[in-house]
Parts: sequence; structure tokens; C-alpha cells
Amino acid sequence: MKNILVINAGSSSLKYQLIDIDSRKVIAKGLCERIGIAGSMLTYSPTDGEKVQIQRDMPTHEVAIKMVLEILTDSKVGVIHDMAEIAAVGHRVLHGGSKFSDSIVINDVVLQAIEDCIPLGPLHNTANLMGIRGCQAAMPGVPMVAVFDTAWGQGMEPSHFMYALPYDAYETYEVRRYGFHGTSHKYVTGRALKLLDNPKARVITCHLGNGSSVSCSVAGRCVDTSMGLTPLEGLPMGTRCGSIDPAIIPFLMKRMNLTAQEMDTLMNKKSGMLGISGVSSDFRDLTAASEAGNERAKLALDMFCYGVKKYIGAYAAAMGGVDCIVFTAGVGENDRNVRESVLKNMEYLGLDVDFDYNMTCPRGQEVCLSKPDSKVKVFVIPTDEEMAIALDTDELTR
Amino acid sequence: MKNILVINAGSSSLKYQLIDIDSRKVIAKGLCERIGIAGSMLTYSPTDGEKVQIQRDMPTHEVAIKMVLEILTDSKVGVIHDMAEIAAVGHRVLHGGSKFSDSIVINDVVLQAIEDCIPLGPLHNTANLMGIRGCQAAMPGVPMVAVFDTAWGQGMEPSHFMYALPYDAYETYEVRRYGFHGTSHKYVTGRALKLLDNPKARVITCHLGNGSSVSCSVAGRCVDTSMGLTPLEGLPMGTRCGSIDPAIIPFLMKRMNLTAQEMDTLMNKKSGMLGISGVSSDFRDLTAASEAGNERAKLALDMFCYGVKKYIGAYAAAMGGVDCIVFTAGVGENDRNVRESVLKNMEYLGLDVDFDYNMTCPRGQEVCLSKPDSKVKVFVIPTDEEMAIALDTDELTR
Repeated sequence: MKNILVINAGSSSLKYQLIDIDSRKVIAKGLCERIGIAGSMLTYSPTDGEKVQIQRDMPTHEVAIKMVLEILTDSKVGVIHDMAEIAAVGHRVLHGGSKFSDSIVINDVVLQAIEDCIPLGPLHNTANLMGIRGCQAAMPGVPMVAVFDTAWGQGMEPSHFMYALPYDAYETYEVRRYGFHGTSHKYVTGRALKLLDNPKARVITCHLGNGSSVSCSVAGRCVDTSMGLTPLEGLPMGTRCGSIDPAIIPFLMKRMNLTAQEMDTLMNKKSGMLGISGVSSDFRDLTAASEAGNERAKLALDMFCYGVKKYIGAYAAAMGGVDCIVFTAGVGENDRNVRESVLKNMEYLGLDVDFDYNMTCPRGQEVCLSKPDSKVKVFVIPTDEEMAIALDTDELTR
Repeated sequence: MKNILVINAGSSSLKYQLIDIDSRKVIAKGLCERIGIAGSMLTYSPTDGEKVQIQRDMPTHEVAIKMVLEILTDSKVGVIHDMAEIAAVGHRVLHGGSKFSDSIVINDVVLQAIEDCIPLGPLHNTANLMGIRGCQAAMPGVPMVAVFDTAWGQGMEPSHFMYALPYDAYETYEVRRYGFHGTSHKYVTGRALKLLDNPKARVITCHLGNGSSVSCSVAGRCVDTSMGLTPLEGLPMGTRCGSIDPAIIPFLMKRMNLTAQEMDTLMNKKSGMLGISGVSSDFRDLTAASEAGNERAKLALDMFCYGVKKYIGAYAAAMGGVDCIVFTAGVGENDRNVRESVLKNMEYLGLDVDFDYNMTCPRGQEVCLSKPDSKVKVFVIPTDEEMAIALDTDELTR
């Protein structure tokens, strides 16, 4: 049994999973909330035991990690005897800029490079660093790996990742398409190549959730991806506007008398499915409202599905055709209506989808929605970013 | 012989063409420059005569129009005897908002509606109104028609024209996709439907020039179009950035310490082909530079062609397939390398292109680039916005 601890640190939160890498099973997982804020709380869910909640002050990420280690090794509710049973720690890091095209064992040079990327992902990278440093203090000597959400996008060619802005925006400010959800796109693409038994396949992956992105790859190398410098670009999302006419921003700033920061907030927090529908950012709420006759909820869902459809078409063109389309993440795995709307009327691409099975197929497992003779295969593949991080961490520290 | 005068008024310029609608021939055309600025100049080119240039003060659009009428009826170089030989005037108007889905005979209500659209197209609509009012003063009683660049885009469904912003942005500020180059997309689509002898065909039109947009339509009704609230969205263009991650705007405003207005200027005037290449916004210059080994000129061209390719793919998905792809405008009609890059590796869509003929086909006329058995037809169709305006004007004033 070799255990990997996977850490996803936010500015005041820390998600963790302890994974037995040999059996690929989650042994325990949980969450520290309100780190550095009054009323901190640890939640701990061992796979074979009762969920535990503990309220105790966690002024820093280091204290939070120590609490996680304490409960993991607790004589009553713990799942391991000793911290030494944790072979390595894998950290999710948002932004690796152009520095990291793959996961990497953390050392001082890597830490500095992650710090250098703070301007590109201020909130996330700062929090990720607090998580890493807290872990290093609490678990000295344990090897740690950084797994970047942007590494996948480093596969893109310049003509696919550059924006048509003055070249200086790229050279001086590192403005380019990086793409996000990389760990997920990479993981489900890897699964698809195995299911297809074709390591060279052209695959389009639709990671659809509260945040959504579409990506495409040939032979497992990213060709394009819909998120950009930040996770705002691309599809309309729960509360994010996705791609819009850039001129709308100065237009609305003037009309509504907004600062750049306020406009940024409007586009990230008040737009998307929520902004259009006025109902919710949650697809289940939107479906219920739409079925009850709410026109704007229906409009929001239609816009979303149309957006996914256009990306599939665009990426098929980018690759000269497509062999496989994958749906993953909360909406992609569970929202059958969204999948149907996206896949309808796509026979021209070589798709022959079993729409009845799409409505009845089991959840939470890998299923094939295309008919046996369909030229293009369509899969639903549950994503598992923590497992992907654990696998990379194991490989790099073996 | 029935003559239509076509007017395209800018803030300090006025382009005109006198067209004989029965023979569909241009009798004379020209340009007034520097209206309201010292050093005004009129250029006049009768089709069957010598080009004339006259320097004379033109303080207003009305004075400019009067000069145009004077030279058209001049006893020596004129092409008509009397102003009465001009049956009607067609005006190009940039922005009709959501008010105009077709061309319309101008009256006071229409003038007011065009004025109401000024916030959506401040520079252009103001200039277009000066042109119309100047004409009305100089040619009292002559019927006039407004032809809107945005009318074509009014064919779109809400799920295709809405942005995923707070709904208020649409209701209060009329922020939506309008699309531009509508007169051109409509004209070449009409020609394509005739060449195909199929009025219900699914057509993708690529208007590629210094400004570029792609549009798609079923049975002559616009389904989607790449420009948006303004002509900034969509493809990278001569000096415009096209679509970018919206978060780049607040990001660069902060980093570069720019106002909203300065950022708008950067995106509209200093970006696109010029911004990336640092060489030129002109495709001929870029091709020369690229062939001489300039990597950034090559990058700019690659980005442009990749963008067109992705729109073709996206719009094929939007329509469930495509019957015909049309190239038009300066670059679309003349740049063979761009057409080749865009059309290469698109066999998956049903394209079988004669790439040799693409390199040798005559310019300035309608040609078919696809092989006889190609499922999808590919045409080059020279656009003619002035003729389209004249035809609409004739039809509405007959």
C-alpha cells in the first residue's frame, strides 16, 4: 500500500484526499474551511467510516495541514498509523505560465517559478503556495509534486495560443492562451485513447460544469482549448460570461460607470447562466425553471448548448476531423438534456448517437453513447482530477 | 435608363456611385475627402471618361453632395443632363440596432430611429445622418433609402445573438450581437443560392478584407455571424484584435495603466495583423514579409487562417452541415494563399477543392474552386455593396 496525499489549497480552504495508489482507492477525504477566519472547521470523511466535523482555529494553512495529519493518524477514526505512511504529496497548482508543460517535483526553483506566475493567477497561485509551504513545514522530507492546471495547454502551437494584440502584450505581460481544466482534459483524453485502443486519435473533450471548457488533442497533445489567459474565456458558464465582443467592456464601463475591477467582477460573478436567467447558475435549477416555462432559463441553456456545439465544430475543423467526443464533469456526466442538445443534428461529422441510451445510461461510470457503427465515438467519462494528480505524483516520486 | 445614386458617408468623407439599375452598370463614382477640414477634395471617375480631381472647400456634407451633383451634370465631364435623372438615393447606414431587419424608405420616423442608434455606432451613424440630411437638402423630393449593415444579422435567433452578460445589459443598453458587413454577406449569399440553384442551401460566407467577418445562413436567413455589438469581435483583422479573453482587458488596463478609451483604441487600431507582425495590416505586405522569413508576419497570417477555419467548422456545426462556402472581399477574392490555408485538410466536411485552380483562377469574377463531385461547393464571389444598395433602393422606390 502506497498512499499519496492530494492537496487543493484555496485562499481560505484546503481540500484533501488520501489515495492508495496501488488499488487506486480513496481512503479518506475532506476539507478545511475558513482558514485564517473565525469559525474554522475541518471535515473528514474516511471511505469506510463515519464523517467527522471539528471546529477549531486554523490561523494558517500549516495549522490546517497539521490537523489533517492528526486526524488521518488518529487512533480512533484515523486510516493510517503514522505520517510516514504518506509516500508523497501532490499539489494542484492553477497557473504554471509558460514554465511548466508537465507536473514536476517541487524544489526551491519550482517554488520560485510558481511565485513568478502569481500575476497570471493572483488568488489561486498565492493560495496554492500557502498550501505547499504549509505542507513542507508540517511534513519535512516528504517529496511533493506540483500538478498544473495549465500544463495541458502548453501543447498548443503559437498560432493557436496567441491573441492578435500588440506583440508586446505577449512579450512583456505574458498574455496568451494558457487554458485551464488541463488535468481533467488530460485525464479523460488518456481514458478515451485507451477505450478507442488508438493512441493517435483526434479527441474533443467537453469538461462541462460550473466552470466549463472544451479542448481538443491529437495523440494526447493539446491542439486548442477554450479557456484563455484566465478561466473567463470560452463557453458561457455558471456565473462567467465566456467570450464576448471585447468592445463591450469599454462600452459598458462607460455606460454603467464601472471601474476595470468592477467590470471584471461583473463578467466573472454576475454573468453566465445566472446573468441571463436571473434564476440560478446551477443547471438543475435552470432545467426545472425552463420546464416550468421560464423563457430566460431556457435561453441560458440554449446558449450554453449552442456554444458547446460550435466549439465541437471549430475543433473538428482545427484537427481536420474528429474521432471521439468526450463529455465529463458535473454537467457533462449528468445532464442528459445538455448532451442531447449538443449532439443533435451532428450527423454531418460522422456521429450516430444512441439518443435513447443517452437518456437511460448509468451515471458515474464510463459509457459509450454512439452506436457501434458510428464513425465518431461519443463517451461519457467521469473525470477524477485528484486521481490524476495522485498518479502524476506517484510516477514522479517513484 | 434608371439611375440610382449610392452614398456612403463618413465623418469627413463621402463615397458615391451612380448606377444604371437596368444595365447594372456603374456610370460614375468618386469620393469627397476632408469634408469640414482644410484642403477638401473631390474625386470623380466617370466609367467612360477621364478621372477628375477638384480642390474646393466643402464645409458640410450638403456642400459636398451639391458638388457631386454639379459634376455629375456638368456639361463637359458629366454623365447625366439633369438631377432629375437620378431616380433615388441609397444610403449605407452602419447601425440599425434591433429596429431594422431590412432596408427602408427614409422618412422622419426612420431618421429618428437612426438617430436613436447613435450610442451603438457613434462615429458612423452620426456621419451617415449627415450624409442623408445633406442629400435631402440638396435633392428635395427625391426618394431615399437606408440600407443597414446590421439588417442581415437580425435574422439570428436569441440564443445566437445574446451574450451571457447580466440580462440588464441587453434590456437597458441593447448589448447583443448585431453583426456587420451584412450587405455584403447578403449579396454574396444571394449570388451563391443562384449559382447552386438551391434557394434553401446552407451557406458560409467569408468576407475577408481589412475588416473581416464570417457568417452563415440557411435559405438566405442569417443563422450566425462573427462580428458582434461592434465590428471588433470575431476574426483577427488588419488592426483589430477580434475575439480575446475578456479578462485580458481589465488585466492590461491595470498593467499598462490604460483608460477604457485607450484600451478600446489599442484593440481597434494597434492590434490584429499589425500588432502581431509589427510589419503591416496589409495582407500583401505580410505575405512578402513572411516569404522573406519574418516569423511574426507568418504567425499573423497563420492566426488569421486558423481563425477562419474555426469559424467554418463552428458554423457547419451550427447548421448541421454546410452546402457551400463563399470567399469574398479584398483578401477573400485575391489572396490565394489564405484560401488554400483555410481550405486545406477540410475533406472531413465534404470538401474536395481544386487547389491548382485556386492558384490560377481569374480574379474579379465568380469562380468555383471545388471539384465537380465535391459535396460542398466553394465559390469566390466578388462582393458589390454599392450594387446591393442600389438594388434595394430601386426595389423600394419602384
